[in-house]
Amino acid sequence: MPASATPCSFPSAPRIAVVGSGAMGCYYGGRLAQHGADVHFLMRSDLEHVRRSGLTVRSCLGDFSLPRVQCAGSAEEIGPCDLVLICLKTTSNRELLRILPPLLGPDTVLLTIQNGLGNEAFLAEHWGAHRVIGGVAFTCINRIAPGVIDHSAQGEISIGEYTGTEQARTRQIAELCSRSGIACTVVDSVMWVRWRKLVWNIPFNGLTILGGGITTEDVLNDPSLALLAESLMEEVIRIATGLGHIMPDGLVQDQILRTRTMAAYRPSSMIDYVEGREVEVESIWGEPWRQAVAAGLPAARLEMIYHLIRSAVARR
Amino acid sequence: MPASATPCSFPSAPRIAVVGSGAMGCYYGGRLAQHGADVHFLMRSDLEHVRRSGLTVRSCLGDFSLPRVQCAGSAEEIGPCDLVLICLKTTSNRELLRILPPLLGPDTVLLTIQNGLGNEAFLAEHWGAHRVIGGVAFTCINRIAPGVIDHSAQGEISIGEYTGTEQARTRQIAELCSRSGIACTVVDSVMWVRWRKLVWNIPFNGLTILGGGITTEDVLNDPSLALLAESLMEEVIRIATGLGHIMPDGLVQDQILRTRTMAAYRPSSMIDYVEGREVEVESIWGEPWRQAVAAGLPAARLEMIYHLIRSAVARR
Repeated sequence: MPASATPCSFPSAPRIAVVGSGAMGCYYGGRLAQHGADVHFLMRSDLEHVRRSGLTVRSCLGDFSLPRVQCAGSAEEIGPCDLVLICLKTTSNRELLRILPPLLGPDTVLLTIQNGLGNEAFLAEHWGAHRVIGGVAFTCINRIAPGVIDHSAQGEISIGEYTGTEQARTRQIAELCSRSGIACTVVDSVMWVRWRKLVWNIPFNGLTILGGGITTEDVLNDPSLALLAESLMEEVIRIATGLGHIMPDGLVQDQILRTRTMAAYRPSSMIDYVEGREVEVESIWGEPWRQAVAAGLPAARLEMIYHLIRSAVARR
Repeated sequence: MPASATPCSFPSAPRIAVVGSGAMGCYYGGRLAQHGADVHFLMRSDLEHVRRSGLTVRSCLGDFSLPRVQCAGSAEEIGPCDLVLICLKTTSNRELLRILPPLLGPDTVLLTIQNGLGNEAFLAEHWGAHRVIGGVAFTCINRIAPGVIDHSAQGEISIGEYTGTEQARTRQIAELCSRSGIACTVVDSVMWVRWRKLVWNIPFNGLTILGGGITTEDVLNDPSLALLAESLMEEVIRIATGLGHIMPDGLVQDQILRTRTMAAYRPSSMIDYVEGREVEVESIWGEPWRQAVAAGLPAARLEMIYHLIRSAVARR
């Protein structure tokens, strides 16, 4: 291996594993594969179907099909990669302890495009902070049938080194994404982006669950829930600011207006809740609340919504 | 009328009207009538039944029946009284604008034994603060059939002048109650007692509703709801203190222990909620929240529980 000015050399044609081949993993991995990248999907329920019929993506940016997809039922079948794209539901993070080791070489980069907080820290704790890149996806993607993905809006991702120091590989991965039809921005602080997204997810994913499975439009049309959405956003902004992530002025009203344009949107956590699937309670509400408490920041509303959701999910 | 040292003379054998002849009104009015007081019940749904068959009270302090009860279908039939015992559900307070005028003489005393905050202020606004006595009942009373009341625990009431200045009539009314088998204490501040009761009602009536109709035992056995019950109590205590109502030390743990002894208790608001009846949302949660906000006191948890309940009731 030649000497390199960057901490880790990153190949121009990386071997990529996708862990968590649900809607997100299939969409982003599929885009990379569509443009010629060497992508290996780790699959469970859809494995046989995709092996037989490939992947189909219906996308607002243009539909595409991949009749032949490299997929495997175990990480051992895939073996060491240069980049592991982690799109697993955060409620299954413990499974990474078993899944990731066979995929790791000395310089393997772990890019988590998962929801909420705590995912980079989990990866860093077990495999070293130097490997970890955080990614935040702004998109609307659903799996509508085995091997069939619907991408209805946006799709861009923001990525940033967990250590905070941009490297050559960060830019290389962003360029690889951009060449593959994935708008990708390198950011100084991925945690800033995560909090920015939580300003919306904490109230809207939460109140649609506590409303028993209502839409974002129902939240805005209910004077009590609309008031709580605003005051929760204000509290999350204060917490983010207290943790050093300064949010833009006017963000609350901006988010309310943006949510109005989304009409009767059903956040993914709410769909998980009403369909009896696991809800990402800890990464979206629990970990932000614990970070606020650890920093001594007032988080009474977040405490309420977190524990009410936790209780509702446990009672379901 | 002879000159008197007290602001209002109060007769030794007062003419009494009971407005809101549900469980509470029938129990307290019934106790007074049982001991010979001149009690007139204003009734709606149970009027014909009680006219025919009287009142039956099954009480932990001794059962009793009143075969003949003075009851009426309108306030006009009753006419002016010395004391009006107001046991109406607070959601019907606006009806008092129509009900009370025929019952009022120049010195008629209005004693509200209703839940939560805002009832004395409502009476004072319309008929003068000098008439108003507040009463807080600590009891468990249910109407189990037309004209049949079940009194299963406690029964004592605390009363105090709304103006804060004890008068001869305050003591006279307390003695009338005590002679009638109703333990009655005169307090300097009925608002202190109301807040003391809200420290329990706000979390436990609220969380049993938000749990979809669970018991106080379910709340304490759910780690998330138990945590919220404690933090809500702490917040309500801080609000009460901020408004000048100093709560005793150790109240939170004391209330948790007392609630454990109540086993699978179903608060009346929760029963109202699951049975589709009106819930006293404004007097138990709304008015305390508005008072906290008006005084500039932090009330984020109360804001959350109030608006979530309001929204749940509206969506029901």
